[in-house]
Amino acid sequence: MKHYKIAVLAGDGIGPEITHEALKVLKVIEERNDVTFELMPASFGACAYFETGDAFPQATIDICDQADAILKGPIGLSHEEAKKIPIDQQPERGALLPMRRRYNTYANFRPVSLPKSLAHFSPLKPEIIGEGIDLIIVRELVGGLYFGEKEMGVNDKGLRYVRETLEYDEEQIRRIMHEAFKLASKRRKLLHNIHKSNVLKSSVLWNEVMEEVAKEYPDVKVVNFLVDAAATALCLNPIQFDVMVMENMFGDILSDQGGGILGSLGLMPSACIGPDKAYYEPSHGSAPDIAGKNIANPYSMIGSVAMMLENSFDMAAEAKNVWDAMQGVFGDGYSTADLSKPGSGVTMISTEQFGDKVVEKL
Amino acid sequence: MKHYKIAVLAGDGIGPEITHEALKVLKVIEERNDVTFELMPASFGACAYFETGDAFPQATIDICDQADAILKGPIGLSHEEAKKIPIDQQPERGALLPMRRRYNTYANFRPVSLPKSLAHFSPLKPEIIGEGIDLIIVRELVGGLYFGEKEMGVNDKGLRYVRETLEYDEEQIRRIMHEAFKLASKRRKLLHNIHKSNVLKSSVLWNEVMEEVAKEYPDVKVVNFLVDAAATALCLNPIQFDVMVMENMFGDILSDQGGGILGSLGLMPSACIGPDKAYYEPSHGSAPDIAGKNIANPYSMIGSVAMMLENSFDMAAEAKNVWDAMQGVFGDGYSTADLSKPGSGVTMISTEQFGDKVVEKL
Ligand SMILES: CC(C)[C@H](C(=O)O)[C@@H](O)C(=O)O
Ligand SMILES: CC(C)[C@H](C(=O)O)[C@@H](O)C(=O)O
Repeated sequence: MKHYKIAVLAGDGIGPEITHEALKVLKVIEERNDVTFELMPASFGACAYFETGDAFPQATIDICDQADAILKGPIGLSHEEAKKIPIDQQPERGALLPMRRRYNTYANFRPVSLPKSLAHFSPLKPEIIGEGIDLIIVRELVGGLYFGEKEMGVNDKGLRYVRETLEYDEEQIRRIMHEAFKLASKRRKLLHNIHKSNVLKSSVLWNEVMEEVAKEYPDVKVVNFLVDAAATALCLNPIQFDVMVMENMFGDILSDQGGGILGSLGLMPSACIGPDKAYYEPSHGSAPDIAGKNIANPYSMIGSVAMMLENSFDMAAEAKNVWDAMQGVFGDGYSTADLSKPGSGVTMISTEQFGDKVVEKL
Repeated sequence: MKHYKIAVLAGDGIGPEITHEALKVLKVIEERNDVTFELMPASFGACAYFETGDAFPQATIDICDQADAILKGPIGLSHEEAKKIPIDQQPERGALLPMRRRYNTYANFRPVSLPKSLAHFSPLKPEIIGEGIDLIIVRELVGGLYFGEKEMGVNDKGLRYVRETLEYDEEQIRRIMHEAFKLASKRRKLLHNIHKSNVLKSSVLWNEVMEEVAKEYPDVKVVNFLVDAAATALCLNPIQFDVMVMENMFGDILSDQGGGILGSLGLMPSACIGPDKAYYEPSHGSAPDIAGKNIANPYSMIGSVAMMLENSFDMAAEAKNVWDAMQGVFGDGYSTADLSKPGSGVTMISTEQFGDKVVEKL
């Protein structure tokens, strides 16, 4: 019997609600497999800051350090609430970025996937979606502007200024490229390399290293796209893409655009993988405006469980069952509020009902 | 009789073709107004580099310096062609960025506009477009990563690295904010401030200055959006936006996403305005793959003429006539190849035919 420890960081806003549904699914998986999951809940984000004065408290660090995998809900406060707490303890700077840094989770996988049968969820016309969108963004997650030095002050003209640095070295680029090429090898053997080499020198190095790594994967076709052109193409012709690789900030923006073309950020799970530890999280924020209303979409959180099953516990078949179950619930004509448009013929269900229906299908 | 000197930089790829149509329109405007336009053609971009060894040669600088306004076509080479010339003479680094720097064109206005009657051009469903998309992106154009210091080398681990800086001072932010608030005051009195303050300290300063400037425009409602959330929202609900303000790189990406939601980058003209000089250009690249085929969409270039008429020559009424004429051609069921989908009932016309039809309508 396998035994896995999972740190469960429910997070802020809608985090606890959607985590609750994800754990229901995990329970089913546990019951029918030769595996036990030891859940270790811990406080993380704004909730942790309000409880302990620290957004990523030592007790949570200890739990994460011991865990075989970390399941993390969304974190964050509204724009106005965030202003009330010190900037470096705001949940992103105080918890999320330190987590990424601590576990060096450089490889962020963000599937942007919508079968043809669910094209009605998308704001895009059915002919744009064709046989379905099925791409995956591979985002470098621990470099670039996110982790560069930041200098604030008053310059010699007496003006307040901020200077921050975007830095990459070849090794940081090489390891994410290997992840992307490996994934492309297992899929359609097509890799879109997203960059801005006509302006950024970091993209020039990025492309150089990409070309070096490409030699090791001769069967993968590389297509180069400027990041701005990629933003156009994601709207006009998303089905041309299979695997897309890009640096941290570009990945932040384009993956949220991905949520846009699917119809909701609620459809965006993700895996953040480092050399020794991985954590799994929705790509979206904590949606404080709808928190506690039992209307959030738990797909991204349950999907993050599926990614955990596959990546951390080698349970690819069960991961697939989870995806299929969720698609099946949608296929039966149900969906959560984010995806229910008046007149679309879809029956709106709550966060809990969605979780229950997934469990039934499993 | 007014007399204006216009530097005409046709640029690379499709540049000459679409410039040709723009000049036809300008001729009509000249003929029926008390104005003469002195056209001063000059070479700029890759074409200039191949002719003179310099992408922004002194002769062109002299012409631009004298001009009352600059009309600039797209520039650039294909990814593979660009590799053959020295990186600092590539058209973006060798011509476009130096132009922006020289004339300090900090305020870039990029309309993203599609009336309901042309919703069929968009990849978005008609219900998303509702009564039409009509927003304008105000992009800071001479700061941030684009103009920061760039350092390349080998670090103490023997690894190649690149470090570049993103810098803004309060004055750079204040002046673009004034542009955005002034524009919002004249329109729907709604300003979306796009930032990434949960990660970037430059966005923290950006937002501070925004709040200071906002006090001078009490009738403008400000809505804050994280850049990633804005990328989602531009797909899901673009009609909520009227004026959006953002820093340089964010503006690059989101404005091209804007071209995506309209249906083509060919619908994206722009104005780049500095304290003493303005230039006007399509937001898109030079599309080398379709150059010389008489199929490019000249809308972005003719629209740039309209923006020039309004901003540089105080001819707002004629600018409106140009917009109306272009919409009229589309309204009659014609469009260029980029917007003609099989079965859409649209009649495809060439670059030249589009220009001729606009002239007829005028
Ligand atoms: C919350 C924020 C810091 C984070 C990011 O920018 O990486 C989020 O937007 C994401 O994409 O995971
Ligand atoms: C050509 C390139 C340097 C330019 C930019 O990034 O600003 C273009 O994409 C634009 O948006 O005007």
